[in-house]
Amino acid sequence: MQQRTQTTQGNDGLFAVGSPVTHWSVQTSNPVQYEIRACENLLDPENLTILEDAADGGRRRRFVVTDRVVDSLYGERIRAYFGHHDVEHRVLVLEDGETHKSMDAVLRVTAALDAFGVDRRREPVIAIGGGVLMDIVGFAASLYRRSTPFIRIPTTLIGLVDAGVGAKTGVNHNGHKNRLGTYFPADRTLLDRSFLATLDARHISNGLSEILKIALIKDARLFDLLEQHGADLLRTKLQSPASMGPTPADVPVDQRLAARGLHLDPATEVVERAIQGMLEELQPNLWEKVLERVVDYGHTFSPTIEMHALPELLHGEAVAVDMALTTVMAERRGLVSAYQRDRVLRVMERLGLPTWHPLCTSELLVEALHDTVRHRDGKQRLPLPVGIGSAVFVNDVTEAELGAAAEALGLVSSGAAR
Amino acid sequence: MQQRTQTTQGNDGLFAVGSPVTHWSVQTSNPVQYEIRACENLLDPENLTILEDAADGGRRRRFVVTDRVVDSLYGERIRAYFGHHDVEHRVLVLEDGETHKSMDAVLRVTAALDAFGVDRRREPVIAIGGGVLMDIVGFAASLYRRSTPFIRIPTTLIGLVDAGVGAKTGVNHNGHKNRLGTYFPADRTLLDRSFLATLDARHISNGLSEILKIALIKDARLFDLLEQHGADLLRTKLQSPASMGPTPADVPVDQRLAARGLHLDPATEVVERAIQGMLEELQPNLWEKVLERVVDYGHTFSPTIEMHALPELLHGEAVAVDMALTTVMAERRGLVSAYQRDRVLRVMERLGLPTWHPLCTSELLVEALHDTVRHRDGKQRLPLPVGIGSAVFVNDVTEAELGAAAEALGLVSSGAAR
Ligand SMILES: NC(=O)c1ccc[n+]([C@@H]2O[C@H](COP(=O)([O-])OP(=O)(O)OC[C@H]3O[C@@H](n4cnc5c(N)ncnc54)[C@H](O)[C@@H]3O)[C@@H](O)[C@H]2O)c1
Ligand SMILES: NC(=O)c1ccc[n+]([C@@H]2O[C@H](COP(=O)([O-])OP(=O)(O)OC[C@H]3O[C@@H](n4cnc5c(N)ncnc54)[C@H](O)[C@@H]3O)[C@@H](O)[C@H]2O)c1
Repeated sequence: MQQRTQTTQGNDGLFAVGSPVTHWSVQTSNPVQYEIRACENLLDPENLTILEDAADGGRRRRFVVTDRVVDSLYGERIRAYFGHHDVEHRVLVLEDGETHKSMDAVLRVTAALDAFGVDRRREPVIAIGGGVLMDIVGFAASLYRRSTPFIRIPTTLIGLVDAGVGAKTGVNHNGHKNRLGTYFPADRTLLDRSFLATLDARHISNGLSEILKIALIKDARLFDLLEQHGADLLRTKLQSPASMGPTPADVPVDQRLAARGLHLDPATEVVERAIQGMLEELQPNLWEKVLERVVDYGHTFSPTIEMHALPELLHGEAVAVDMALTTVMAERRGLVSAYQRDRVLRVMERLGLPTWHPLCTSELLVEALHDTVRHRDGKQRLPLPVGIGSAVFVNDVTEAELGAAAEALGLVSSGAAR
Repeated sequence: MQQRTQTTQGNDGLFAVGSPVTHWSVQTSNPVQYEIRACENLLDPENLTILEDAADGGRRRRFVVTDRVVDSLYGERIRAYFGHHDVEHRVLVLEDGETHKSMDAVLRVTAALDAFGVDRRREPVIAIGGGVLMDIVGFAASLYRRSTPFIRIPTTLIGLVDAGVGAKTGVNHNGHKNRLGTYFPADRTLLDRSFLATLDARHISNGLSEILKIALIKDARLFDLLEQHGADLLRTKLQSPASMGPTPADVPVDQRLAARGLHLDPATEVVERAIQGMLEELQPNLWEKVLERVVDYGHTFSPTIEMHALPELLHGEAVAVDMALTTVMAERRGLVSAYQRDRVLRVMERLGLPTWHPLCTSELLVEALHDTVRHRDGKQRLPLPVGIGSAVFVNDVTEAELGAAAEALGLVSSGAAR
């Protein structure tokens, strides 16, 4: 047999090893590029951002997925938007909420995609909703014909700063949080904070929890901002001056910001720092080949707590309980001072987040850690805060330590959930 | 906000664009490396190949999936193999056959994975079976915790030369062939042709069809081999001299081959040329970003034919009907001579493949082309053979041409399916 070794670029290639060939080694890599953009007035019919897709070829069709609540609030404007631009569209409305984050929902989306019929690579599916909706639609898009492009338009704070930013999709399965999923970032994520105006305070708090996570592990300035403006951010639902009133769409956002001087308003700075911090961690590790991830902070015990408490606790609330617990663990290990610990717990309260939950028993925490260890390939890889704004990984947590920390947390915490 | 631009390597990086930041561009790439290896006596307890995984860390557990038929033939030896090595194992047995290639089967695998509990990155799932089984297990492995490593051990000829070679996983859905799936190659594929000894002739023919595909689009020498030895290959089930009798596992295959002189036996050469040809096409385009793929030859009309005829036609048989039809189209366009066309049809018959099917009506072919056009992003991108051993893409096939070709095929073909 003819021996051929073919190299395409870099270290990629196909190597036929041995003579005669009995062994092939295939090396390649999948380049991924995606964009996250802050926008305003996305649903304004004069704003073309949503439809700005190069590969469209004139034939305008869009498949839109949203959830029941978002549909009741924005459905008319969404339909009017596509109608205004003469875009043939179908709006699929899913049930909302974590309990509907299931494979069934994914298969509803793929069945509807079949019925509508989308071209394989140039009619992006548009997901408008919170983290649950985007995770479902992203999952469906990644599976449909083994990948169909999609666009995310987050309408919750968790969506804006977290679920809309990375590459993970997924659904709950067999009682486990996000047990099935893929890595498949949206081609574009369009961030329009004005959606938050209709969100209830509890879901704002929920998103602030993921922002606090970034602050605690890597951004002391972000923590200061949350400490100083947290209550205000919650009250104003992160609507900055510019996005509060109607603004002409033809004035670019940076001009408007410049007009207000070089200082960003706290809401804008908080959101942008959170996204920047998140992306700095995700970009070099989008497929989680490295399992020591500081952004997993708050996500060691929370998946199990969240699934057991469902639907009582929101995702960010479970994350807050996890962060409170691990802050107390860090204090007991001398990584965080008692003063810093109390500052953290106080900021959580100010952000409307629980700092304790009755599920924080040593049994459940042990179970949660056990499952996370499997998820982190046999090691705990538990991020613990060091002071405020950095973190360290530990692998030596014992059942006794968990029990003691849970008890200590019960004593120091006077969180909303008590 | 602090402006940060971070670049990790090459063109990858996170780019915060604009001042103040209102736009992020994330660029990265997912490196993928996998191995395909020809082996013998895989299930021999003395052969350590299956268990050769670096990242195992001593704690030996393996989750194995196979199908009912393979289990009845090899199940005892599989269990004995892991038992011999004191590996805690679970063998999940799925129903066999194309009609069971469904999302349900994928979810059976993930549920069993949950019950067994595998570590995230170092306990590879082992798939032992044909293309259906490997596509299901690969799909499940790609979704489980967003990716769990797996190993493929193909036991059919289609599995050895096609389904075990690339990165595609998937299941049928909503009446459409492979409508849902992912790109997720097995870390290792271990090829042991001795499994073919128990396969019936029809399934050998089925695999020879995919080999013929590679021959027709890119390898005239492979076509000659099939023309010369096709009937023999079918009769001997591609068992080469070396793999026919029991051979000591400690003599490397290349030494055994060298002992037989520098010439490979036809079965070995045919299989290796087929895999080499397939990989040359797949490696630079593993995620199918380029939709003009010569390896899609025979796969334009066949998905619809196969799904309509289910379970009557096998995958490779439907592919053969598609290749017969498109060979006739190519002849009518003057790309292939009448002599070459007849040679191709004669080889198909010699390989035990149908060259015509009653579903080859102009209505069904039009429907099939329509669906393929969506799958190829709005264009036909139809590969047609040019002589024997190369191909060209066309985009101008009309309903009239399809009708005429179907009719012409009916006249020239005296295929087994008539
Ligand atoms: N993929 C990721 O990287 C990632 C990251 C973080 C969180 N998540 C996932 O995100 C989910 C949590 O996100 P979430 O809190 O956005 O959940 P969600 O999507 O359930 O939204 C919360 C509720 O708010 C409603 N809602 C959405 N937008 C609204 C608006 N503008 N006004 C009023 N109501 C609105 C929704 O209908 C829902 O009832 C979890 O499942 C979590 O696992 C994913
Ligand atoms: N992923 C890919 O790139 C790719 C490529 C080509 C084909 N495929 C898929 O592969 C499937 C066809 O593959 P297949 O023909 O192997 O199907 P299959 O897995 O259904 O196997 C065919 C039959 O042979 C039985 N069998 C398997 N091994 C045997 C053995 N050693 N002895 C006796 N019987 C045995 C099986 O139980 C089954 O009944 C199709 O679904 C096709 O879409 C996938």
